[in-house]
Amino acid sequence: MIWAVILAGGSGSRFWPLSTPSNPKQLLPLTGSESTAEQAVSRLEGLVPRERILIVTGPALADRLIRVLDLPRENVLVEPRAASTGPALVWATFEAQRRDPAAQVLSLHADWAIREADSFRHTAAQALSTALRHKRLVTVGIVPTRPETGFGYIVPGKSLDESARTVSRFAEKPDAATALDLMASGALWNSGLFAWSAGVLLDEVRRHTDEIAPHLALLQHGDVAGFFAAVTAVSIDVGLLERSAAVAVVPGRFTWDDVGTWDALPRVRPRDAHGNAVVGPVYLLDTDDCVVWSNGDPIVVSGVKDLVIVHAHGRILVMPRRQAADLKTILDRLPPEIRDLP
Amino acid sequence: MIWAVILAGGSGSRFWPLSTPSNPKQLLPLTGSESTAEQAVSRLEGLVPRERILIVTGPALADRLIRVLDLPRENVLVEPRAASTGPALVWATFEAQRRDPAAQVLSLHADWAIREADSFRHTAAQALSTALRHKRLVTVGIVPTRPETGFGYIVPGKSLDESARTVSRFAEKPDAATALDLMASGALWNSGLFAWSAGVLLDEVRRHTDEIAPHLALLQHGDVAGFFAAVTAVSIDVGLLERSAAVAVVPGRFTWDDVGTWDALPRVRPRDAHGNAVVGPVYLLDTDDCVVWSNGDPIVVSGVKDLVIVHAHGRILVMPRRQAADLKTILDRLPPEIRDLP
Repeated sequence: MIWAVILAGGSGSRFWPLSTPSNPKQLLPLTGSESTAEQAVSRLEGLVPRERILIVTGPALADRLIRVLDLPRENVLVEPRAASTGPALVWATFEAQRRDPAAQVLSLHADWAIREADSFRHTAAQALSTALRHKRLVTVGIVPTRPETGFGYIVPGKSLDESARTVSRFAEKPDAATALDLMASGALWNSGLFAWSAGVLLDEVRRHTDEIAPHLALLQHGDVAGFFAAVTAVSIDVGLLERSAAVAVVPGRFTWDDVGTWDALPRVRPRDAHGNAVVGPVYLLDTDDCVVWSNGDPIVVSGVKDLVIVHAHGRILVMPRRQAADLKTILDRLPPEIRDLP
Repeated sequence: MIWAVILAGGSGSRFWPLSTPSNPKQLLPLTGSESTAEQAVSRLEGLVPRERILIVTGPALADRLIRVLDLPRENVLVEPRAASTGPALVWATFEAQRRDPAAQVLSLHADWAIREADSFRHTAAQALSTALRHKRLVTVGIVPTRPETGFGYIVPGKSLDESARTVSRFAEKPDAATALDLMASGALWNSGLFAWSAGVLLDEVRRHTDEIAPHLALLQHGDVAGFFAAVTAVSIDVGLLERSAAVAVVPGRFTWDDVGTWDALPRVRPRDAHGNAVVGPVYLLDTDDCVVWSNGDPIVVSGVKDLVIVHAHGRILVMPRRQAADLKTILDRLPPEIRDLP
């Protein structure tokens, strides 16, 4: 049967001061009236029933996610520590297989914005069938619409069938010139949407992932805490996909964004006639291409361009949109009592 | 005896949202820890005793000014309506003369920033003695330090004595090219610091100011409300000084600013090493030449230049410094419930 694993970790700093550790971006209505986590679940409707959706998250968010997403408590997997996507996906896949030995797993993230849900479901189903047919770890590569430097890329190799291809290589976040070359040569964005049979994933982990494989026995004995204490933090991309020969890619033609920074909002929300993405009591005059969000006081903005302006949780942030990707660095330079939000 | 008249009207919109009708800029600590109104009074120490300082203001501010400035109640003259500086100064001069027939009057504003108080007092005394000696209305012209387009200018004429000159003409707020010409030709800023003998002022008003002169009898009968209802609003500059032949100018070499807009703050406050003027819990990173004021929440600003950013009275304002002079226009475009503050 088909299972979905939704990764819902994250420290909540990328949308500071709106996102906080107890209210990280996946629980915020960044793209519309629902949170992206709610959208991630409802987008699976017709493909995966709720009782086969597993959420991986940290201790701080488990209760809120159970409540907000209306999922059975046993479907929320609480990581004892954040150790990147490798251990999280291995644990969740192991858990799916324990409940259903023939489990096929779809891996996704709680903070995506996807416009065409039908196309998403069609592609996800295709990825699952490719995974089953070719016994491969299948990545969905999004057809790029711009030479984005904030995403990783997948360079496809030879054809496996009418839609799937092997993976020639993964390219990490490129510089601007490389991003143009990648896009021109047909490379695809590495979305993090993956499909595999549980058995194939765990076999490949045993073969390639020294950071995790020696500790799988701890999971078999039900010692999740021991497993997370023993593994080395590693992403599924670096720890497995880049090492395995059994990888494939299918193209995704839906609009996808990981809503990684404040700068992404105008791509995933309705914009006004001047390109601004605005939420809350905000009054713009002669202002273009800004992101202005108030959960607090009215914000009056006049005569500026390309800024992020936010009031939330008793903090005000003003920065250029081009600095949004460096927000973590900005926060590191602040006094903890200003930066740290509950 | 020497009297001082301090004009302390104003609608409180130029420093929105910090200034409000009940807390206008002259009551704000714009230049330091004291309000500019308090500084206006203490700056007169040694020149004019408190019992001979008259304040002209509106009904909303009278009680606060009496309390803050520690003045006798009868020295606060409450205008029934705002009618520009002409009627205000005529009434206050009339009132000084009523209490002291030989009154000499110094006219100043409650919202000035003046750095060198000694030089100010020296120049004020000189203007008063010029007024007495030559029976003229004496303006103090500030020696300009930049081709400011936000001030009016005084073009001096022929010498009256070692320091005073006649006034060739007044030039209203000039464009940038004209300001450069004015500065190069020795024109001085029209500060609004004036000195006159009460009798001379009232004679000149009778001769030149049709907007006011016919209604002086109402003042003589103690009917202040009738006087303000009857007069036409007119500034002392347009209504009298530009028309009278009995005008003189003495140069002022102290640092003077009317703190007319948010943009003025970096001129009248200490700046940080990057040219920013900052008040309240403000955290600046890679930010230059900004004005950032918080009476409310902490403001984090990164990577911007030449902006005004304010949080006060439950409102946030973000605009370029060059728009500060147009703040009234910005406010006119806002919904009243956002703009109007108590």
